[in-house]
Amino acid sequence: MREITIHDLDDLAVGAAILGTGGGGDPYIGKLVARAALEESGPVRLLSLDEVPDGAQVVACGAMGAPTILIEKLPGGEEMETAFAAWERHTGRRIEAVMPFEAGGVNSMVPIAVAARRGLPVIDADGMGRAFPQLEMETFNVYGVPACPTAIADEKGNVSVIETPSAAQAEWIARGLTIRMGGQAYVANYGMDGASARRVSVPGTMSLAVGIGRTLREAKAARRDPVSALVAFFAGTHYGCARLIGAGKVGDLSRREVNGWSVGTVRIEPFEPGADPILVEIQNENLVAEQGGQVLAVVPDLISILDLDTAEAIPTERLRYGQRVNILAVRVPEIMRTPEALAIFGPAAFGLKHAYRPLSET
Amino acid sequence: MREITIHDLDDLAVGAAILGTGGGGDPYIGKLVARAALEESGPVRLLSLDEVPDGAQVVACGAMGAPTILIEKLPGGEEMETAFAAWERHTGRRIEAVMPFEAGGVNSMVPIAVAARRGLPVIDADGMGRAFPQLEMETFNVYGVPACPTAIADEKGNVSVIETPSAAQAEWIARGLTIRMGGQAYVANYGMDGASARRVSVPGTMSLAVGIGRTLREAKAARRDPVSALVAFFAGTHYGCARLIGAGKVGDLSRREVNGWSVGTVRIEPFEPGADPILVEIQNENLVAEQGGQVLAVVPDLISILDLDTAEAIPTERLRYGQRVNILAVRVPEIMRTPEALAIFGPAAFGLKHAYRPLSET
Repeated sequence: MREITIHDLDDLAVGAAILGTGGGGDPYIGKLVARAALEESGPVRLLSLDEVPDGAQVVACGAMGAPTILIEKLPGGEEMETAFAAWERHTGRRIEAVMPFEAGGVNSMVPIAVAARRGLPVIDADGMGRAFPQLEMETFNVYGVPACPTAIADEKGNVSVIETPSAAQAEWIARGLTIRMGGQAYVANYGMDGASARRVSVPGTMSLAVGIGRTLREAKAARRDPVSALVAFFAGTHYGCARLIGAGKVGDLSRREVNGWSVGTVRIEPFEPGADPILVEIQNENLVAEQGGQVLAVVPDLISILDLDTAEAIPTERLRYGQRVNILAVRVPEIMRTPEALAIFGPAAFGLKHAYRPLSET
Repeated sequence: MREITIHDLDDLAVGAAILGTGGGGDPYIGKLVARAALEESGPVRLLSLDEVPDGAQVVACGAMGAPTILIEKLPGGEEMETAFAAWERHTGRRIEAVMPFEAGGVNSMVPIAVAARRGLPVIDADGMGRAFPQLEMETFNVYGVPACPTAIADEKGNVSVIETPSAAQAEWIARGLTIRMGGQAYVANYGMDGASARRVSVPGTMSLAVGIGRTLREAKAARRDPVSALVAFFAGTHYGCARLIGAGKVGDLSRREVNGWSVGTVRIEPFEPGADPILVEIQNENLVAEQGGQVLAVVPDLISILDLDTAEAIPTERLRYGQRVNILAVRVPEIMRTPEALAIFGPAAFGLKHAYRPLSET
């Protein structure tokens, strides 16, 4: 891909929902904002990490806050611009390329809108390789790029620039600001040069999301099984391994709001008679899937719950009793599986006792 | 006064407690920090508003948060320096003079410490002419100086710079940050030039506080009545009118924490037999004193509850059943009594139904 046009947005939204692994905010809302920006400003250039000049000023961006609030507080598209302007004023530097801090959900879309308005390229990469619930859960942080200055803005033009040496502390302060800003805010952070971006980012995730969407669309048009098509598609990418780890009906579903996160467990009753139920634990995103005491997949690997018929991802807040679903797991690339990476967003970072074992082919 | 030395700090603390009108944080804690800074760096030059050069870069500063937390989280003196450094980095300007944003409580002391460390003068003026509970309740705001950029820092070196056109919104966001920073934070804001400072500030309040302390100290040494001495002292200042509006014993006392404020009512039983009780309503500071349905004094005029014997102010959090007290009221200067000023910190701004009537001589 050389650029992102209006015609890519439907595929991107479908792919971003799957990379969202249940969280990340509704990409269909982000799509409205990205579409408006592309209609106004034309397509956005997509740069692979290899194409970013060594000295180019890169900034990561995205929305943070409760996904449910996003629906009531539709972004106008100016919020991110406010954060960018504050970041530039504060640092005295000009932003030359935009990177999503997260691949998946609304945050695959938000960077496109601000890049279009500013006439900047988007980098085909991100810092999570999926959706995660916290700003420090970034390969940028894992491999030594400071999160701050972090600029955070709301739709009223309020903006704050945070400086702290710790990415976790930046998350803590930014989360507090987000609450004061009405539950939804827009962040520009992890400023770095192009050479650093190449070293610390998960590559190719924007085109990966578009590819996921296109694969599903084409499989459905050709009446082929969409999940098999997805598994084959991932096999040809640097993610490599994807697998259907279960299928069944949504049974018990417990969810509660804890410290601003949606936390809970969903129990899926397999279609296969006599099989143990599959339990998926959730903190915004799906964290671990177990069956009969065996771990089927665990964070940071992706666990996406897909509608049985459409193969589209069902976000956590739309899970309902009785839904018929497939559970797809995807192994993350090597850069997300190092000991340093697992220390930041492996099972223990979410309070899980499970050791990480990468998803196997069978 | 030409400078502030270690020998002024005791008087300043006593005066700042009275200007604190029950709130503003414990000046005796601030004194420890100011003393350490003055011991290290020598006296601080005190500039009257007339002496500030028109083009000098002035910044206001002080601590915000719950006074009770201050006691547990003693400031190290570096916190304000962190905020100053962030304000300068963000604006690209150098701070040339320091002004307290509040006269009273801990915030008469905090600016002295940072000025001493930086070798800057302190301006003998402030933006409240007393203590108020919120950052927008400033004559700076009343007369058109923007609160932002507002830099806010904690003792761990975390700092955030807020930009919003509204001082009330800056307060709202800064309050949220203060909570995330552990309940106590240090603010540098209301950047302005010397000419503006002359136009928008309450003059002479640092030397006023020292004068209050000195007056009490000298009256006690000479075995004269300290309250009469205070009334005579105020008569010679631009505040002009001070008056003993009651005396009695603290009776019922209701206080609760509401949205981070200490809110309540204290009932004072006059010594005079048969007299109606005096009710003082509190939001951190003492807001209104009433007796038999008559308003004795109301915000922005000062209402200070003084220990009957020492004539030192009793802060809200140290009020106890059975204390014997004098109630002193002080009329604020004209700059704080205009319709624009009353819109920002008059009775209605605190949700009180009372009209403001300036304290009369009798």
